[in-house]
Amino acid sequence: MADRPVADGDFEARVRASFVRQKAMVTIGAELTLVTPGTVEIEMPYSPEFTQQHGFLHAGVISMALDSACGYAAYSLMPADAGVLTIEFKVNLLAPGKGERFIFRGSVTKPGRTIMVADGQAFAYDSEGGAKLIATMTGTMMTVVGREGIEG
Amino acid sequence: MADRPVADGDFEARVRASFVRQKAMVTIGAELTLVTPGTVEIEMPYSPEFTQQHGFLHAGVISMALDSACGYAAYSLMPADAGVLTIEFKVNLLAPGKGERFIFRGSVTKPGRTIMVADGQAFAYDSEGGAKLIATMTGTMMTVVGREGIEG
Amino acid sequence: MADRPVADGDFEARVRASFVRQKAMVTIGAELTLVTPGTVEIEMPYSPEFTQQHGFLHAGVISMALDSACGYAAYSLMPADAGVLTIEFKVNLLAPGKGERFIFRGSVTKPGRTIMVADGQAFAYDSEGGAKLIATMTGTMMTVVGREGIEG
Amino acid sequence: MADRPVADGDFEARVRASFVRQKAMVTIGAELTLVTPGTVEIEMPYSPEFTQQHGFLHAGVISMALDSACGYAAYSLMPADAGVLTIEFKVNLLAPGKGERFIFRGSVTKPGRTIMVADGQAFAYDSEGGAKLIATMTGTMMTVVGREGIEG
Repeated sequence: MADRPVADGDFEARVRASFVRQKAMVTIGAELTLVTPGTVEIEMPYSPEFTQQHGFLHAGVISMALDSACGYAAYSLMPADAGVLTIEFKVNLLAPGKGERFIFRGSVTKPGRTIMVADGQAFAYDSEGGAKLIATMTGTMMTVVGREGIEG
Repeated sequence: MADRPVADGDFEARVRASFVRQKAMVTIGAELTLVTPGTVEIEMPYSPEFTQQHGFLHAGVISMALDSACGYAAYSLMPADAGVLTIEFKVNLLAPGKGERFIFRGSVTKPGRTIMVADGQAFAYDSEGGAKLIATMTGTMMTVVGREGIEG
Repeated sequence: MADRPVADGDFEARVRASFVRQKAMVTIGAELTLVTPGTVEIEMPYSPEFTQQHGFLHAGVISMALDSACGYAAYSLMPADAGVLTIEFKVNLLAPGKGERFIFRGSVTKPGRTIMVADGQAFAYDSEGGAKLIATMTGTMMTVVGREGIEG
Repeated sequence: MADRPVADGDFEARVRASFVRQKAMVTIGAELTLVTPGTVEIEMPYSPEFTQQHGFLHAGVISMALDSACGYAAYSLMPADAGVLTIEFKVNLLAPGKGERFIFRGSVTKPGRTIMVADGQAFAYDSEGGAKLIATMTGTMMTVVGREGIEG
């Protein structure tokens, strides 16, 4: 997908600085592996601590990483003084969260001054590097400016 | 909400046994505090390890607990040999995940043999016990029978 | 549900004036039967012109009426000079659209200055007056002020 | 998108036969313009009878056509004796329904024996043929076999 116009040339530093403040991402072992204007990728290894009852990655963890990928995809296009909030998202779980590592990609489908819509895809990779689409997300993100406690 | 008809009188033991196998629930400090036919409640304390960049509970953790509450609400009505899978869910985040502890309630809106629809609500409690609705979920759950690896 | 605080005492006249300008509502035979602060009801008879392939009311028509009910529920709480736009909605279809007439109720779950979240329920009534919940909606609505072409 | 494997070689005739039985599609002036394995397109002209209060195509009509496109995309892959039901869908409205004609494309993202997930896109075309993405949908469809009244 082509890059989107950014409002702030320092978008990558801004996204990375905010990401490391998301303690939930650190806790699940997630890393930011790609930051381009309007598209962000997050990777994490399989972790038995974040499984559901069948031993697969919990749908909620998949959603958490997809939400962050979509939120930062939107945030990458926002002005320097803005914060990002997720208004809502929908996840479809297409296949079990079974794999050695997982990649979560978020891309802005519709930029906007106040509201941005982003779509996400989660892929599971097995030990041979084969990828499988395991979930998709559509999320609505909001640009917040001048609200105390909401920076980044 | 009135109790729903169950397919298995041992539903509570079955739900509790499956819940403890959800390692992600243990990891986030969640506990099963209510199991009735068609309604389940999960509680968790605020934990700095599961926050987003503004220090609030991460939307993904809220979704994780709501997904479990909705999934087990559906599972409580299923036959003894069935497993439950989440097909999809949507979350609306109504207020920041700010509080001392959180309660996640899932209730079956529409029971069904193959497909169940459940609705969830997340509440944040402050130190004085005041509750605030912070998120809602609608999820679609599927009854799975005879699929290897999907028990409970 | 208790009434919500309104921003404009003339909310009912404002909602009714906008509704009659929704030609799609006139075309499907829908009527506004309840307008209270934060809750709106719309009714329509079964019409063979708006069916899907099995002769039931088309899911899209159910969504259309639910979207209007949710949108006007939000609009009832908005200032006099605002317009309402639907950002997104999700519908769960719980039972076929089979009945003599249909009632669609929208209620604001979370009011807000810019964003409002509304939930909707669609009921089918048979010839004896028995009601059945056939669909639910969660929608996100936006208050728009000062955008040309978006009044009401 | 590459074609998906079909369960019935006569899929196109089957889709077209079902489509003409969707009276709601005839009523809004929609036509089936593309039927390939897993992807379906529907077109309709702008019609003042199906507008919302600002004169744009009603979000519900956009949803109705997207739902049909997604539903028939799924149906194209189903066995000859199956019927298709929409379990749920989510629509994001990205731009006003302003244009001379509209194209609605539905594609299966995840085929499955019981459950299929399809994604849809709605485009508005102006008088010079310029296209604009106005809405996206993600829908969950179900294969129904042997349920009376649900053929096609």
